[in-house]
Amino acid sequence: MALLIRNCAYVVRNPTQIERDCDVLTEGSHIQAIGKDLPAPSRVEIIDGRGCVVLPGLVNAHTHLYQNLLKGISPGLTLVPWCNQVLFPSLGAMRTLMGRNGKRLAYLWTAIASIEMIRGGITSCVNMDTTSSEIMHAWVDIGFRGVLAYTLSNKWVPAELRASEDNMKQQMLDFIQNYHHPDGLTTVSVAPSTVFLCTDDFLVWAGEQAQAHDLGMQIHIAETAGEVADQVKETGRTPVEHLQHLGLLNERLSAVHVVHVNPRDIDLLAGSGAQMVHCPKSNMKLADGIAPTALLRKSGIPVSLGTDGCASNDLLDMWEEMRAALLLARVSEN
Amino acid sequence: MALLIRNCAYVVRNPTQIERDCDVLTEGSHIQAIGKDLPAPSRVEIIDGRGCVVLPGLVNAHTHLYQNLLKGISPGLTLVPWCNQVLFPSLGAMRTLMGRNGKRLAYLWTAIASIEMIRGGITSCVNMDTTSSEIMHAWVDIGFRGVLAYTLSNKWVPAELRASEDNMKQQMLDFIQNYHHPDGLTTVSVAPSTVFLCTDDFLVWAGEQAQAHDLGMQIHIAETAGEVADQVKETGRTPVEHLQHLGLLNERLSAVHVVHVNPRDIDLLAGSGAQMVHCPKSNMKLADGIAPTALLRKSGIPVSLGTDGCASNDLLDMWEEMRAALLLARVSEN
Repeated sequence: MALLIRNCAYVVRNPTQIERDCDVLTEGSHIQAIGKDLPAPSRVEIIDGRGCVVLPGLVNAHTHLYQNLLKGISPGLTLVPWCNQVLFPSLGAMRTLMGRNGKRLAYLWTAIASIEMIRGGITSCVNMDTTSSEIMHAWVDIGFRGVLAYTLSNKWVPAELRASEDNMKQQMLDFIQNYHHPDGLTTVSVAPSTVFLCTDDFLVWAGEQAQAHDLGMQIHIAETAGEVADQVKETGRTPVEHLQHLGLLNERLSAVHVVHVNPRDIDLLAGSGAQMVHCPKSNMKLADGIAPTALLRKSGIPVSLGTDGCASNDLLDMWEEMRAALLLARVSEN
Repeated sequence: MALLIRNCAYVVRNPTQIERDCDVLTEGSHIQAIGKDLPAPSRVEIIDGRGCVVLPGLVNAHTHLYQNLLKGISPGLTLVPWCNQVLFPSLGAMRTLMGRNGKRLAYLWTAIASIEMIRGGITSCVNMDTTSSEIMHAWVDIGFRGVLAYTLSNKWVPAELRASEDNMKQQMLDFIQNYHHPDGLTTVSVAPSTVFLCTDDFLVWAGEQAQAHDLGMQIHIAETAGEVADQVKETGRTPVEHLQHLGLLNERLSAVHVVHVNPRDIDLLAGSGAQMVHCPKSNMKLADGIAPTALLRKSGIPVSLGTDGCASNDLLDMWEEMRAALLLARVSEN
C-alpha cells in the first residue's frame, strides 16, 4: 500500500538539500515522489506531516540489546572487571530465567530496546546478541530492520555460558538459513566477539562462513590499551595486525571501537575496505580512551556510529551519540 | 493554595531515600508531607502522579539565555574567534532589533529557553545575560525561578555594544532595587564577564556591590589556556591568583569553567569558600579543554553544573549535561 505524508515542514534527503512544506509518497519500500501537492493514488494511507521533519531512518551500527535489562547497573568499572562482575553473572541469571520461561525474555528485551530506538528515529541496528530466535520474531512483529550479529567466542567467557563449539557453529548456520533475508526485515552477520575471545582457528572459520554466505562480519577490536598490549605480547602483532594475519581485514569487516591503534594499524584498515564503528559514549563510560576518528576518516576509513549496549551507555539515542562524537572529537584535539 | 500529588511512582528526596507509590503535599513553597494516602486539605489542587517520578527541580547554574537565538550557528570555532565572528555581530543585530521592537525580543528568548528548561525538569537558572527588564517579566509570567547575573565588562567587547561605565553601574544598581527579591521568583547577582573583559577598578567595584547588597558574584574564569597565558604575561598572576589579589575569592564567588588551573589555583579556590560551575559540553564544543572536576571536588570545592549558552551547547538539558560530566570525567582519567 502507498503512504503519502502531506505538508512535511522539512524533508531531508541530504544535509545540503533540505526541502520545505512538501509531500512525500512511498510505495512499498521505495520513495516514489517528493514534491508539492502530489496526487494521491487510489489505495493510500495519508499522514499529516505539518510541524514534522521527514528524514531517513537512523542506523545504530553497533549495540547489544540484551543489555537493555542492565541499564544503570554497576557504573565505575572498566571493561574486564565489568565483564567479570556484571556481564557474566547477569548473562547467567538471564540464561536461568530463559530456561524457566522459554524465550519470552529475549522477545521482551528486543521489543523494549527497539521501541526506544524507533522513538528516537532509529529504524535499523546491528545487534551483537545472544541467539534466541525470539529476537528475530520481535523485529518482524514491530517492523524494525534488524541485523543479528551472531556472537561467537570460544575463549575466556565462562564455559557454562557457552555452547560447545560444534553446537555454536551448527546453530549459526541454522540461524543464517532461517533468518537471513536480505530483502526482508531480518538479516544475520557473523560476530566473533573479539580476537582475545576466539582461537585463531575459530576466527578463520567465521571468516570462511562470512565469505561462503555473503555476510558481514563485526568484531570488537582495539577497545582497551590492555587488550592491545596482551595481543602484542602473545602474538607479536597488534589486534588489527592479527586480523590482517588471519585474512580477516576486508570489505566485509565492521571493526567496532578502534580506540588504541597506531599508524600502521590505520594504514592496514584503510587499505582493506573495512569500516569502523565509533561508540563514543561507551568508550567514555568504560574509560577506554578516545578513538582517533578524525584521523580514521582522513585515511578514508568509513566511520559509522553505534550506541553500544545499554550497560555502557544507558540510552539508545543516536542524537546524543552524534553530539557526543562531535564534542569528544573537538575537545580531544586540544 | 495547596497542591497534592497522589500516587507518585517514585519520590526522590535524596539518592539514598527513594520512596514508592506515595503522595506529596505542598503548601505555598514548602513540602508539608510525604506519605501514603495523605488527607486532602479543603482548598487543594490534585495531580495524578502515577507513572511519574517526583524529584527536586534541577538548577542550571550557568547559562546565557539570549543565545537561544543562536542555536546551531557557526560550529567549529574556538572561544575568541567565535566571540568576534558570531557573538558580537549577533548581539549587534539583536540590539538593533530590540531598538525597533522594544524589549519584546528579550521576553521571547527568555520564554523559549525557560520553557525548554522546564520541560527537562529545570526550575531555576543563573542567566548571565543582557539586562532587559523583560527577562524578569518573562520569568514571573512563566513561574520560573531566575537569577539574572548582571553582565559587566568595560574592556575588549566592542564599544558600540557597551553602555558607558557610569550608565552600566547605575543600571545595575537600579536592577538590584527593582528585581532582587530573595523571597520571590527573581534575584540579581553581579557578573563581571571575565577578568580580561574588566579593568581591575571595575572588578573591585563589582565586588564591593556584591558585599553591600549581599549578592552572589559569577565570573567566567580559566576557560582557555590562552586566557591564562595572557593574564600571567600581563600581571604575573593566573586569573585565579588575580581574583585573589583583588580580594574577590570568597564565598560569594561562583567560578565558571575553571578548566586551566594549577595546584596553587585549586588551593586558593578551596580555601576561599567559592564554588565552581562545570559546563562540560560547552568546554567540549569550544575545545576549551577538560576541567579537573575530580580534583576540585577532592579539594572540597563545591562543583555545580551548567549548560552554558545554546551557542556552545545547542541544548539546555541538564540530564545530558550530567551524563556528559560523568562520561568526560571517566574518559579523561585514562
